[in-house]
Amino acid sequence: MDSKDGLHYDPESGVREGLPCDGVIIPSALHVEPGKLYDAIVIGAGYAGLIAARDLAVRVTEGHKVLLLEARDRIGGRTWTSVIEGYPYEMGGTWVHWGQPHVWTELSRYNLVDQLEDSAETLPGVTHKISYYFEHGRNDLSAEEDAQNMNTALTEFCNVDGQLGKTVMPFPHKPFTEAEQFTKWDRISAAERVNQIKDRLTPDQQSLLLSIIVTASGSPADQVAFTEILRWWALAGYDSQAYMDYIIKWKLKCGQTRLALRIFRDALASGNLSYRFSSPVHQIDQSRQQLVVTAKDGQHMSGQYLVCTVPLNTLNDVKFNPPLSHSKVLAASRGHVNLCVKAHAEVETADHRSWWGMAYNRKPGIMAGAFGDGLTPSGNAHLVSFSLNDAFQGGSDHGFSQIKAAYEEFHPFKIKRLLYHPWATDPYAKGTWAMYALGFGSRFKRDLQASQGRIHFASADWADGWHGFIDGAMEQGMRASAKILTELQKVPAARL
Amino acid sequence: MDSKDGLHYDPESGVREGLPCDGVIIPSALHVEPGKLYDAIVIGAGYAGLIAARDLAVRVTEGHKVLLLEARDRIGGRTWTSVIEGYPYEMGGTWVHWGQPHVWTELSRYNLVDQLEDSAETLPGVTHKISYYFEHGRNDLSAEEDAQNMNTALTEFCNVDGQLGKTVMPFPHKPFTEAEQFTKWDRISAAERVNQIKDRLTPDQQSLLLSIIVTASGSPADQVAFTEILRWWALAGYDSQAYMDYIIKWKLKCGQTRLALRIFRDALASGNLSYRFSSPVHQIDQSRQQLVVTAKDGQHMSGQYLVCTVPLNTLNDVKFNPPLSHSKVLAASRGHVNLCVKAHAEVETADHRSWWGMAYNRKPGIMAGAFGDGLTPSGNAHLVSFSLNDAFQGGSDHGFSQIKAAYEEFHPFKIKRLLYHPWATDPYAKGTWAMYALGFGSRFKRDLQASQGRIHFASADWADGWHGFIDGAMEQGMRASAKILTELQKVPAARL
Repeated sequence: MDSKDGLHYDPESGVREGLPCDGVIIPSALHVEPGKLYDAIVIGAGYAGLIAARDLAVRVTEGHKVLLLEARDRIGGRTWTSVIEGYPYEMGGTWVHWGQPHVWTELSRYNLVDQLEDSAETLPGVTHKISYYFEHGRNDLSAEEDAQNMNTALTEFCNVDGQLGKTVMPFPHKPFTEAEQFTKWDRISAAERVNQIKDRLTPDQQSLLLSIIVTASGSPADQVAFTEILRWWALAGYDSQAYMDYIIKWKLKCGQTRLALRIFRDALASGNLSYRFSSPVHQIDQSRQQLVVTAKDGQHMSGQYLVCTVPLNTLNDVKFNPPLSHSKVLAASRGHVNLCVKAHAEVETADHRSWWGMAYNRKPGIMAGAFGDGLTPSGNAHLVSFSLNDAFQGGSDHGFSQIKAAYEEFHPFKIKRLLYHPWATDPYAKGTWAMYALGFGSRFKRDLQASQGRIHFASADWADGWHGFIDGAMEQGMRASAKILTELQKVPAARL
Repeated sequence: MDSKDGLHYDPESGVREGLPCDGVIIPSALHVEPGKLYDAIVIGAGYAGLIAARDLAVRVTEGHKVLLLEARDRIGGRTWTSVIEGYPYEMGGTWVHWGQPHVWTELSRYNLVDQLEDSAETLPGVTHKISYYFEHGRNDLSAEEDAQNMNTALTEFCNVDGQLGKTVMPFPHKPFTEAEQFTKWDRISAAERVNQIKDRLTPDQQSLLLSIIVTASGSPADQVAFTEILRWWALAGYDSQAYMDYIIKWKLKCGQTRLALRIFRDALASGNLSYRFSSPVHQIDQSRQQLVVTAKDGQHMSGQYLVCTVPLNTLNDVKFNPPLSHSKVLAASRGHVNLCVKAHAEVETADHRSWWGMAYNRKPGIMAGAFGDGLTPSGNAHLVSFSLNDAFQGGSDHGFSQIKAAYEEFHPFKIKRLLYHPWATDPYAKGTWAMYALGFGSRFKRDLQASQGRIHFASADWADGWHGFIDGAMEQGMRASAKILTELQKVPAARL
């Protein structure tokens, strides 16, 4: 089935809207009964919503008592796979690691550990090569030389305390425990921190670091908080090699949508799940005895409790009665800063399977990095790239000519296809994985996590640990369902 | 309540058998009906069994259809807490880390992340000090000097390929994927590997390394496989500081038994769990249509499926019909090599909160390490030590005089109390956390994991990733329950 999501370009057919996705759910609604009081309603079928729906569905009283609502035609939210000519392209969330506890536990549960493969695997006989395209022209390096630059740059960047940042984030899964130290560093941008250490870096190392920051944040380095990069560093064990291993190494051969389907089917098999896709929410009303959700098509649905997984940048598009807290409204109106364009290319040069390009301050496309990520069944290289959104605004071709030009800035690729999901303009995302502006985390994270009445807010965008990651979505979904199971008295309350 | 487990000594009262434990379950049996056919029987209420029982109980048909059988009077298996004068002593499994995915997910689910505290926290105003007691006499070092020795020694030890061991264990949660490289290194002992690199180490570094190996394995270094230490190193991210952070840093303020109780009560709240404690198993018979478990008191219980969490070193003490595979019988008769005595001391010198002692080749007690681990409510230091079992054989005082002497070898402590669980002689453990002899892992791990008919074997002792750890127990319990849920058609089978 094709989803309405995603954009595809190839030289023969030009631009096409919509991409195949096994996560499109048919029929689009099941067991939805008007007037029924559900034990719980879950809004959003991304990983946060899927985990919450499953954990609730297996514990509630029998009889389709959990309702999952989703605006899109598919599961997965900001993580979904399009399989084209037998090859899986990850349109959003991709990489996982065994040090990301929540997602790893799900891979372990569904026996998918054997599906992991290394994105950085090289083509047999072709040595891994990294090309820098910085201000001073192109420079080709070995993987070892790049790793040394990366290590120097990232370690200098994160080592704010002579202890690799450990005093600022000693416990990266508990974001509120070290408030004082953290708040201080949360006030400066990644660009300012680069500026503090630039005398200790070569020009290449400095540009590489800025390229890494842009790739990580989907934002100019002066708009993202320094602590956002420090957080990844701390979560990955305060080490530059581990940083890469956690962030961009291990992906699922079968595609993330397979994992999402396993969770969804598991929830369905409980016999307790109802669902409704292509059903965006207009209003959530908990001013009366029953909590009532109204879809944009006017359908009302009632529940005792609700899990809201609506992303940060679109949270103000849903009407709440009583309204959201002032702090939530303010946080959502500021939003997170990641408007990254993650684009895939299939190119007719197999050798580029073993190639990475890092760019900074080049024209025309502000592409920060492109990475060999696989070999398609036709024997072509699959590249994945990360760009600033600003470069791809407007145009009747959805920016494909600019993406193409940005790729060609690296190399005169013979491009077979390009594809991407325009997360920044997607009405149900308005941004890519959450990365915070200066001061945003210390000001808003706790407030974003706070429940209001019978509504629990669960999103990767404000997870304790891996916010912006698949792991964070699952953390949030599990915790929201745990709260509701306690409220429904299905799980005993804590007694310490 | 007091458990029958554990031993306590204090100068006034001498030796006492049994220790208080909140994990003792009263009444000792619930909803056990003779003649009933259970959906699943789980043998063992350690973490593997608790996770399996919970995951099954919330998914089976209603009506107490899961039966949990346990030989002891308490939950927790080789992980349990004794709270004495308001202070929690961990008698077995203790430390956890967010990079241990299965246990971290449970801490996250039950909202226990805030309960974590740092074992290596120092007393205010008292600098952390490490004392080496090696062949050349005592040597006091700063934490930094010790960390440098540790880093040099462990890195040299593990760096067998110039790539920190990554080519031997690139994917430490998939133990069977790199068989060739792994099998080669699995044939040598930790002692042999020390011998290979000894020219690159100072005498202190060499003794420290041997002390670390004995502490980790509860075994002389020539009896444990080199790959066992390499596995910890790989799982912790190929880094000596991370190794310490994963292995011995973060523990639960509330005690592990609180986590075990949360899981147990959660399973009970499903309304589907029956249980029977103090009920060791005599025989498991699946030769007829129904699987029948016979307890040592003659009670028969029938089930469709079974999770067997009986530890490796006691697996041959249960009679199976048809018999266990030849390979399982052989593995269990060889057993794992860890006979560590983990002992606690409360000593009247608060300053030793900030102290660690490392020993090698000293008499009279073969104590490899003692670590300041907390401050009791009376303001005394709590020390935890790891010793070779051989030093504590025999004697009418359960070895307390030898443990005392071993502590006093470090320092003339004024000892208020000593306590430990004699895992090596415990009939339901016959060993401490599993550490393998040379070649054991490559020869037996896969066979130990294999199901036989309707029996699934789940134990930390043969977990894919963190074997011998709490995380590994939970990994195994979750996977066994996932298999049975698929067999019971509660969860759809994989479709990739």
